[in-house]
Amino acid sequence: MKLATFAIPTPAGPVRRIGALVDGRLVDLQVAYAGYLERTDPGCDATRLAAALLPDDMVLFLGNGTLGREAALRAIEESGRGEEALGRRTAYRLEEVRLLAPVPRPRVIRDFLTFEGHMRNASRALGRGGEIPPAWYEVPAYYKGDPDTVVGPDHDVVMPRYTEKFDFELELGMVIGRRGKDIPREEAPKYIAGFTIFNDFSARDQQMREAPVGMGPSKGKDFDTGNAIGPYLVTPDEIDISDVRMVARVNGEVWSEGRSAGMHFSFADLIAHVSQSETIYPGELWGSGTVTNGCGLELGRWLQPGDVVELEVEGIGVLRNRVVRAE
Amino acid sequence: MKLATFAIPTPAGPVRRIGALVDGRLVDLQVAYAGYLERTDPGCDATRLAAALLPDDMVLFLGNGTLGREAALRAIEESGRGEEALGRRTAYRLEEVRLLAPVPRPRVIRDFLTFEGHMRNASRALGRGGEIPPAWYEVPAYYKGDPDTVVGPDHDVVMPRYTEKFDFELELGMVIGRRGKDIPREEAPKYIAGFTIFNDFSARDQQMREAPVGMGPSKGKDFDTGNAIGPYLVTPDEIDISDVRMVARVNGEVWSEGRSAGMHFSFADLIAHVSQSETIYPGELWGSGTVTNGCGLELGRWLQPGDVVELEVEGIGVLRNRVVRAE
Repeated sequence: MKLATFAIPTPAGPVRRIGALVDGRLVDLQVAYAGYLERTDPGCDATRLAAALLPDDMVLFLGNGTLGREAALRAIEESGRGEEALGRRTAYRLEEVRLLAPVPRPRVIRDFLTFEGHMRNASRALGRGGEIPPAWYEVPAYYKGDPDTVVGPDHDVVMPRYTEKFDFELELGMVIGRRGKDIPREEAPKYIAGFTIFNDFSARDQQMREAPVGMGPSKGKDFDTGNAIGPYLVTPDEIDISDVRMVARVNGEVWSEGRSAGMHFSFADLIAHVSQSETIYPGELWGSGTVTNGCGLELGRWLQPGDVVELEVEGIGVLRNRVVRAE
Repeated sequence: MKLATFAIPTPAGPVRRIGALVDGRLVDLQVAYAGYLERTDPGCDATRLAAALLPDDMVLFLGNGTLGREAALRAIEESGRGEEALGRRTAYRLEEVRLLAPVPRPRVIRDFLTFEGHMRNASRALGRGGEIPPAWYEVPAYYKGDPDTVVGPDHDVVMPRYTEKFDFELELGMVIGRRGKDIPREEAPKYIAGFTIFNDFSARDQQMREAPVGMGPSKGKDFDTGNAIGPYLVTPDEIDISDVRMVARVNGEVWSEGRSAGMHFSFADLIAHVSQSETIYPGELWGSGTVTNGCGLELGRWLQPGDVVELEVEGIGVLRNRVVRAE
């Protein structure tokens, strides 16, 4: 499935739903499933049950586990039966709705650094001669992002006032689908709900000012709209993330082009590592770290107000955001 | 007010409530307020309204703003009128209930480093000769914690399997009470809901393994039960946090003794800094960083399974946790 979170404009304000992309249209999973229930179990509380199993929040949906996934599959099948169920529309064209971040507020954000080439280039750009600390090869360290700063496709990204070196980062995003702890590496893939594109916008000058304190990025990464994800959350059965094409364009010009192959730690490695003595939960968003050459820091270029950044990942889609100055 | 979150044991499982400490007893704010409504506005939906204004979740309560605070004050007054309201108890002795973390799942955790003495001692302990990076004086950098790892008073703290240098940190915790952005320093105190004690347990060997990667603490701080807070959230009108006594005892022996005076950045400074271009929300937990001498790293001592760590802060209380080994 290609899952999305989307908003349907209505006179009463936007109505949020989770959907699945089917033949270029977004199925409203909740409504379609209510239709399925009404058809197969007439007289049950179809609307209420559908809202419980396919709620409007992706974190809650993922927490519904197998029941939720099966309901989503039934809903997709059911949507083929007609345009309406219970007097409501079961699907929308993309231009009729607004795509939100597939996980509008992840439960936790962890962002790693798994691409050696990015480490080397960043080290060179920061005047460290391309040297990589030996620890990087041993331990998949990460910082945690602020879940309240997430935005979706086509949402404006506001440059913080305190930066003049504003940057994007082309990353894979992985979303956790099951609760677990002390997960063996070979079991780890079962904990992956899906993949998305992650643009971890960064205020590089601020990040460099903070770095010597040793706490990792703080205001270098934490500002409203600073974490863009989307457009879809693609389930692992639909994508082999181990070697997909990844491209970053700014105002239509290709700035970065690479592949996801060669992560020093795989997502399964990361799950095994993080879940040591710690419970991980459905709805966490984990970033791969920037793919080699996948940010301006490595290229010696910065974003400016008005720039449109498009990140494309084969099998997921295009995540497009415009950079704007704070009002 | 000294606010708490507590669990009332019942045959149907624990019932969670927020309370206020009054004359050594915990007032069940929700029940007492329902009693107030029933008495002053007979025939209204007292139980439902009380649950909305004084919900069982501190983050939601803080988001209720002035309405919530006023309801809490009415509830405390009302609790003086009798032991029961609407056939339910309005207050409990401490030994009848279980104190939970006052904010069981903070919306976000940010932890700073504001005590110069701790910086100096930690630098010495880590073989850096007591030198403090100049950036520390300029920018209040912080890392973010995992809100799913919070526990309250008297909760066991489980040593991660991967550490042999397990440590506590004696810190002040501050909780945000209002949503805001670009907050001027002089307005910042209005955004503080209250203060608590924060024990940021740390796996120092793991923290040191990760540090060279430059992302700040990852698994050095992220493990289940690793962030203890409590026992109370004390509102700013009841405490002047600028110079209170802070003590850490392990198995009854005083390991650290100090005062909160001399934070290089005040909480108001931190609010003004963090809220630049970023919205802060009710229910965020911010740590002051370790007070000078307030951790084993500075003292060359580590915690062992079975150790009982008591952190005492004048005007807040004692936060006690026992260290145990993973099963």
